[in-house]
Amino acid sequence: MKYFLLIFCFWISFLSPSSSTAKGHEHPSLILTKASVKEIRDNINKYPILERTVLEMKKRLDATIAEGIEVPIPKDPAGGYTHEQHKENYRRMYEAGILYQVLQDPKYAQFVDDMLMKYAEMFPTLPLHPVKKSYAPGKLFWQCLNDDNWVVYTAQAYDCVYDAISPKHRKIIEKDLLRPYAEFLSKENLKVFNRIHNHGVWDVAAVGMLGYVLGDQQLVEQSLHGYFKKPLKGDEAFRQANARAGFYAHLNQLFGPEGYYTEGPYYHRYALTPFILFAEAISNNEPERDIFHYRNSVLLKTVDCLLQLTNEKGEFLPFNDAIPEMSINAPSVIEGVDIAYKHEQNPDFVAVAALQNKVTISEGGLMIAKALASGDVPRIRRHSHIIKDGQHGDQGGIGFLYSKNRAEQFALTLKYSTHGLSHGHYDKLGLTLYKKGKPVLQDYGAVRYVNVEQKEGGRYLPETAKFARQSGSHNVMTCDGKSHFDGNIKESSKHWGTLMAFDVDHKDYQAIRARQNHVYEGVDMQRTIVQIQDTSLRDPIYLDVMEGFSKETHQYDLSYQYLGQIMDMKFDQYTSHQTLSPIGTQAGFEYIWKVAEAETTTQNAQFSWLNHEVFYTITTLNNAPTKQTLGEYGANDPNFNLRREPMYMMSRRADDVRFVNLIEPHGKINPATNELVRDTHSQISDLKETNLAEGLNVVQFQHSNGHTYQVFLAANSDKAAKHTATLNNETVRWQGPISVVVK
Amino acid sequence: MKYFLLIFCFWISFLSPSSSTAKGHEHPSLILTKASVKEIRDNINKYPILERTVLEMKKRLDATIAEGIEVPIPKDPAGGYTHEQHKENYRRMYEAGILYQVLQDPKYAQFVDDMLMKYAEMFPTLPLHPVKKSYAPGKLFWQCLNDDNWVVYTAQAYDCVYDAISPKHRKIIEKDLLRPYAEFLSKENLKVFNRIHNHGVWDVAAVGMLGYVLGDQQLVEQSLHGYFKKPLKGDEAFRQANARAGFYAHLNQLFGPEGYYTEGPYYHRYALTPFILFAEAISNNEPERDIFHYRNSVLLKTVDCLLQLTNEKGEFLPFNDAIPEMSINAPSVIEGVDIAYKHEQNPDFVAVAALQNKVTISEGGLMIAKALASGDVPRIRRHSHIIKDGQHGDQGGIGFLYSKNRAEQFALTLKYSTHGLSHGHYDKLGLTLYKKGKPVLQDYGAVRYVNVEQKEGGRYLPETAKFARQSGSHNVMTCDGKSHFDGNIKESSKHWGTLMAFDVDHKDYQAIRARQNHVYEGVDMQRTIVQIQDTSLRDPIYLDVMEGFSKETHQYDLSYQYLGQIMDMKFDQYTSHQTLSPIGTQAGFEYIWKVAEAETTTQNAQFSWLNHEVFYTITTLNNAPTKQTLGEYGANDPNFNLRREPMYMMSRRADDVRFVNLIEPHGKINPATNELVRDTHSQISDLKETNLAEGLNVVQFQHSNGHTYQVFLAANSDKAAKHTATLNNETVRWQGPISVVVK
Repeated sequence: MKYFLLIFCFWISFLSPSSSTAKGHEHPSLILTKASVKEIRDNINKYPILERTVLEMKKRLDATIAEGIEVPIPKDPAGGYTHEQHKENYRRMYEAGILYQVLQDPKYAQFVDDMLMKYAEMFPTLPLHPVKKSYAPGKLFWQCLNDDNWVVYTAQAYDCVYDAISPKHRKIIEKDLLRPYAEFLSKENLKVFNRIHNHGVWDVAAVGMLGYVLGDQQLVEQSLHGYFKKPLKGDEAFRQANARAGFYAHLNQLFGPEGYYTEGPYYHRYALTPFILFAEAISNNEPERDIFHYRNSVLLKTVDCLLQLTNEKGEFLPFNDAIPEMSINAPSVIEGVDIAYKHEQNPDFVAVAALQNKVTISEGGLMIAKALASGDVPRIRRHSHIIKDGQHGDQGGIGFLYSKNRAEQFALTLKYSTHGLSHGHYDKLGLTLYKKGKPVLQDYGAVRYVNVEQKEGGRYLPETAKFARQSGSHNVMTCDGKSHFDGNIKESSKHWGTLMAFDVDHKDYQAIRARQNHVYEGVDMQRTIVQIQDTSLRDPIYLDVMEGFSKETHQYDLSYQYLGQIMDMKFDQYTSHQTLSPIGTQAGFEYIWKVAEAETTTQNAQFSWLNHEVFYTITTLNNAPTKQTLGEYGANDPNFNLRREPMYMMSRRADDVRFVNLIEPHGKINPATNELVRDTHSQISDLKETNLAEGLNVVQFQHSNGHTYQVFLAANSDKAAKHTATLNNETVRWQGPISVVVK
Repeated sequence: MKYFLLIFCFWISFLSPSSSTAKGHEHPSLILTKASVKEIRDNINKYPILERTVLEMKKRLDATIAEGIEVPIPKDPAGGYTHEQHKENYRRMYEAGILYQVLQDPKYAQFVDDMLMKYAEMFPTLPLHPVKKSYAPGKLFWQCLNDDNWVVYTAQAYDCVYDAISPKHRKIIEKDLLRPYAEFLSKENLKVFNRIHNHGVWDVAAVGMLGYVLGDQQLVEQSLHGYFKKPLKGDEAFRQANARAGFYAHLNQLFGPEGYYTEGPYYHRYALTPFILFAEAISNNEPERDIFHYRNSVLLKTVDCLLQLTNEKGEFLPFNDAIPEMSINAPSVIEGVDIAYKHEQNPDFVAVAALQNKVTISEGGLMIAKALASGDVPRIRRHSHIIKDGQHGDQGGIGFLYSKNRAEQFALTLKYSTHGLSHGHYDKLGLTLYKKGKPVLQDYGAVRYVNVEQKEGGRYLPETAKFARQSGSHNVMTCDGKSHFDGNIKESSKHWGTLMAFDVDHKDYQAIRARQNHVYEGVDMQRTIVQIQDTSLRDPIYLDVMEGFSKETHQYDLSYQYLGQIMDMKFDQYTSHQTLSPIGTQAGFEYIWKVAEAETTTQNAQFSWLNHEVFYTITTLNNAPTKQTLGEYGANDPNFNLRREPMYMMSRRADDVRFVNLIEPHGKINPATNELVRDTHSQISDLKETNLAEGLNVVQFQHSNGHTYQVFLAANSDKAAKHTATLNNETVRWQGPISVVVK
């Protein structure tokens, strides 16, 4: 037997290079191919990162094989035993498939064979999953989305061990498990299969990959174009560009021109797997489609775009429903980066792979391993930029401002994108601010404990919809205590922001301005952020001008969801409450305790806190009397689903409102060594704004470095418009909406 | 000039080896000596860690020299400009002294010369510091403790550059600055100079080091034995053993036999500098005193003891007033470890130096650098043990239980020590629990932002005395809502706990029992902790039996200051409050919001939380109806001095009370990768206790691993006592107070 295997292996190795172009019924051909397997086998010992992955897989799998196979009747919700077991099963089958190819030990093929036979025995008996909580329940799992995950990896496992399974078993597995599963996930689940959404792309990828592995081109065709009784007529290019559902429709509709995925980075990361894996299967089976270069290489762009949507720790910016800890270490991103690198040798992919410190066993994984071993590993590129939302890039977007000095870098984001489908949040013109990957002004993300059964089976908790999606938990301005668009998703989905100015080419400052109309009936808003950092400033100072425009009088509330410990407050009439009640009754405010409040009428109010050993101060210009509120999350939260974190809010009643704030990092402490503490106080004084002429203002402040900073602002956002005004008897001239002078 | 200097340097290098034994007026002789400087100069290029330190010093100092010297009139409190500047000045002078010795560049001597001349000009004009907040104000600083710091390092700087300063300048510096400073810190500050306390040891070290550098043996003598009009009579050994003040009195009285410093690790770290530096100066100037081996080498033991009082991250356990981030990276610990290593080659010193990744420029620093370069760096040794408090080791102590598996290690501490002088806390029989250096059940430490001027000048905030020192913020049992000893420090200082049992030699469990009598009038307490970890348990389970004994009925409250997010609660009659009020009116409870409460009468209550990706459950045996309270810090805290952290408390009314709880880590999640989540639920069921006979009980519970755990407890703590009882018609026999059977 051993001897036979040796010959058999030799025969495979010998044949594979020349047979790599043969398509159709050759196996493997989804992600691995005969040619890539040979390359991997020939090189594995040269690259410890690759070898380690194989050894880890082997260790895990040998333990699983020793424990025996468990294929329980589906019963539990997410996080429960049967859910986790079926998840574990597909992962182990997938790894066994790879190991069989790489190590050519038949026990791994046998493991997949045995397990698939058990599934084939059970599958025909299964009703819909008994946990009836999803709009589209699955068979093995409570939602068919998880069944799609199962199929995407099981198809690869089957592909890898296909040649080692007897024709008799193959027949049973295909007839009783894979074909009916494809049928279930497509025709029987049309509302998912034809949906443009991350659920939809998982579903078409699952069915399409089954199509290739079963040699069923009709399944592939449906996955590419959707399932319709009357398919679109026309040539393939026309059908791709006008696809109503299926993979091409997803590629057309879900990404902006730079690859921004409309649901935001958390789902971007999640949807990446089916996009990339199915694309790789298409590329291997129908290279003539040139899928990775479809629509100006949108699939390659989207991988790069996703990497840009991270903080310096590699965690995804938690816009919309998201778990803030989710990072580039997610398996989908490792897969995505590896496969993308095969098709485009982008240095950012290598930079991220170095952080991941892990590669997949694939052709791209091998190429990344080679690049990592070659020495100088690049660092992911970061520069201030705009990512546009919408299929044509005309539906708002996200702006990024990065400060100088990479080692101590700050990153500010301004979000003026579309709502982001069902997982979107009401955070129009919302900010976040990070230092070295740690949030200073946070986006809460979602309220969810993934896979923790006692937290409602790991699903989104009610506070996601009622708190985390609402305006009250974001760094935004609200009106009359309500969420943007009064929390109406239909209305919110119709409107997106407009970039009014983006100017990052100056030595001493960068600026962005975005506008969002119709945030409330009769209320438009505009936010201008100027990042000031001349050579005398170690860290940047942010001028934040938040404007509201209305013909009616409203209560305007501007919130900062800061993180850290309060150090100092310069307010008038300050009251700290002895008993606590919530701040408001809706928009998420009902989840926030009002712990203190103040009213300040003097020229400037200041609020200082300490976050990860750096001090921050928000200095407010009281161009009108301002109420201050200090809040803490946790009201109306009997199950303690929320993190206990603070917020700071300022309020005014007005028709038009203009909040002018400086956000200023300053000083540093090191409690572990008691090193010198400096600059614990704000370095800023005398913040004021002067109206120079209709639509022309100057915001000025003094800094302890001896400089006076002047920020000239024009209401007119035209970047070619030239402005002239008089300040202190001197004529000042500038062009465009924003200009900074350091005196 | 250059040529002359070259000859001069050569002459020094040539002479130093042979002159190293000459004592008295040779310089340097405090910490560096001519011999050790030569050794360092000859070896510096071999050890990058040493070279890097010199280069960092040089870079800092060259910048300081370029900026020019600033010696401002003292004015500001801690954290303010003049405070920080004088601090910076002594640090830079100290470094300049070292650099002059090592690099022999005269500009560094010149820097010290210039600065000391400025101080000598100012010092005679100085009144007491204008910030009158200390019981003992200084001259340059608001408290003379900081002046002592200044002198300890300035004396070293002067010692290093002595030979390079002109006799004329030396005369001015000594006459106008150093001698009057010594006078001020000793005779004019007798309440500090003769005090047995960390302030006292800093003061005698400062004066003693001035004594050596000025060649004034009388100052040295006073520092060693205190300043008294009638000095103690008798021979030197008698005078050392019976010293009423001074260095010997500190060595006699402040340490336990293993070197435990009675104020706790935070002040231990702080007091280490004067102990170690002055001892080294004594050792170099009067080697015949053999100071490092005085009292069974208590100074060497205390360094090792301090290292044991850290968590796995190297942070000191924040017993008593302490900043929880303070760690072995503190300069005092680097100095301490280096100098101690010169006198005893303890592998733990090397282990810690490896974590510190920094050495001092000293003979010990060079030896550590050599040890680190030699290859295999040890890991600090951790084993369950007892550290005894009190000069004779008979005043209570601290117990440490470490779990198996170093990589995932848990550390539990039980504190039954003395009060710990003025910085002590009311936390008799208090627990802490850590996993891999991260607190699970925390000791809050102190409420203080060191050197942050806006937080009351960086001093202890009022909440230290009213919250952090009180029982309500600790993992302890209280009576009738009051602190231990009703918060009376005099009373608390008279009583300490007694170790009743300590048994760590069993395969499946370790146990500790301590008792504290008179905690309240007529109330004694005892706590028994059993750490259970047989081979079937990945992580340990802790049985916590907290008993109170009284003839009167009391309200007993047992608090757990857990950290993390609540996952699940199994209580009856649960109420989450809609408006919040504090839990109590004193003992720190007035700083805790009561956010929810419950009453549970069923057999077991369970409370689960998530802390750093691990789940924990406290399972309570309701042998009587139990009230549960969930609290959050922050009530009555208008300046937001407290961290917002949670606590869990259980309450009963009884005369004798017996709280039986299991503290159980279980499961794991990894939100960054969405890996499999397992064991989110407690694995424990059916916790019960059966009285077998008078004074004999068995606590039993089921675990999902299939085992039944039986913990046999005898009220009699005699470890030789043999017990026999009947359980389920079987005879059980065990010896000593605690025994565990796994079935």
